[in-house]
Amino acid sequence: MKIIEQSRAPNPRRVRIFLAEKGITVPFEQIEIGKKQHRAPEFLKHNPMGQVPVLILDDGTAISESVAICRYFEETNPTPPLFGRDARDKAIVEMMNRRMEHGLLARVATVFRHTHPSMAELEVPQIKEWGDANRARVGAALEMMDGELATKPFMAGENYSIADITALVAVDFMRPSRIERPAHLKNLDRWYGQMSTRPSAKAGM
Amino acid sequence: MKIIEQSRAPNPRRVRIFLAEKGITVPFEQIEIGKKQHRAPEFLKHNPMGQVPVLILDDGTAISESVAICRYFEETNPTPPLFGRDARDKAIVEMMNRRMEHGLLARVATVFRHTHPSMAELEVPQIKEWGDANRARVGAALEMMDGELATKPFMAGENYSIADITALVAVDFMRPSRIERPAHLKNLDRWYGQMSTRPSAKAGM
Repeated sequence: MKIIEQSRAPNPRRVRIFLAEKGITVPFEQIEIGKKQHRAPEFLKHNPMGQVPVLILDDGTAISESVAICRYFEETNPTPPLFGRDARDKAIVEMMNRRMEHGLLARVATVFRHTHPSMAELEVPQIKEWGDANRARVGAALEMMDGELATKPFMAGENYSIADITALVAVDFMRPSRIERPAHLKNLDRWYGQMSTRPSAKAGM
Repeated sequence: MKIIEQSRAPNPRRVRIFLAEKGITVPFEQIEIGKKQHRAPEFLKHNPMGQVPVLILDDGTAISESVAICRYFEETNPTPPLFGRDARDKAIVEMMNRRMEHGLLARVATVFRHTHPSMAELEVPQIKEWGDANRARVGAALEMMDGELATKPFMAGENYSIADITALVAVDFMRPSRIERPAHLKNLDRWYGQMSTRPSAKAGM
């Protein structure tokens, strides 16, 4: 078993934090996106979408998509549960993780891909207007998060979950995307302070 | 328990097909997106993202995000399993469902939102260049699907799953988005014929 990734990229970091929280060790193999190794035939045979990370199981099965990799380890190493506990709780974790993915991480990534000079060659066409539209939407997502965190310690309620991992990675990815965190969101501040001092937060940094 | 939705919209249809495959009946309540009822305060208190469908549980808990709603019913009504069977299979279903979401459904929806005249008032800014860039990527996703379906009956392998539901809804949503299905993708054709004649395919049409 191994994970092919590029360390410090946001999606590989989600998997690294998840593994750290579970106490699981998996060997990593690095590729370089800057050298377009994610578009080389030997990588595309593992993942035709050309994205990292990819988990290669001992039987050769290639699992891509960060959340699918996390789900594999949730099934094989159920403790601590990071996808929820009962039907209602699992649905809430799925909902909040997706809200953080679509409402926050994807928008931050769109700002990065469509406005950062280093991405001009990889994101074709790079559309600045679309990047800027997403910058405004990141602000709305952070306001929503702050509201959720007014009444609960974690993104999905009383327990730390994969939704906190996605949200932490998204907030940290705001820095290279050159998006400032608004100073007035005090619940978000409190949560960010707690999340970023967990030992797992160092994973993939 | 009830589901608030707008029937015939793509995401509500995913949930309706899922329920039909499970043999579950839930009462539906309609809102009209054209009248911006999804942005009214009484709806936003259920889902601050302003999206349908939303499942309201008997205790008042609001579950939004189509896949989170499906996961709730997978947990409460496990047969037939539509999210996979063992750890490896569940990871593959999660992977393929996400590939169909990000690689196909989201791209078709982007073409619709950013190029269809009826969306000009709801999608601000509507960026035609971004819509057109996604039109090209839909073609690449369909080629990838056709390749996957060369060696297996369903999107995630030997069993029908939520990945087939997402893919069917995405392919059907190509019509209002004015994207033609390429005639040369024979594996996709075979799969589409099988999926669209299952009784569940009528749900949400």
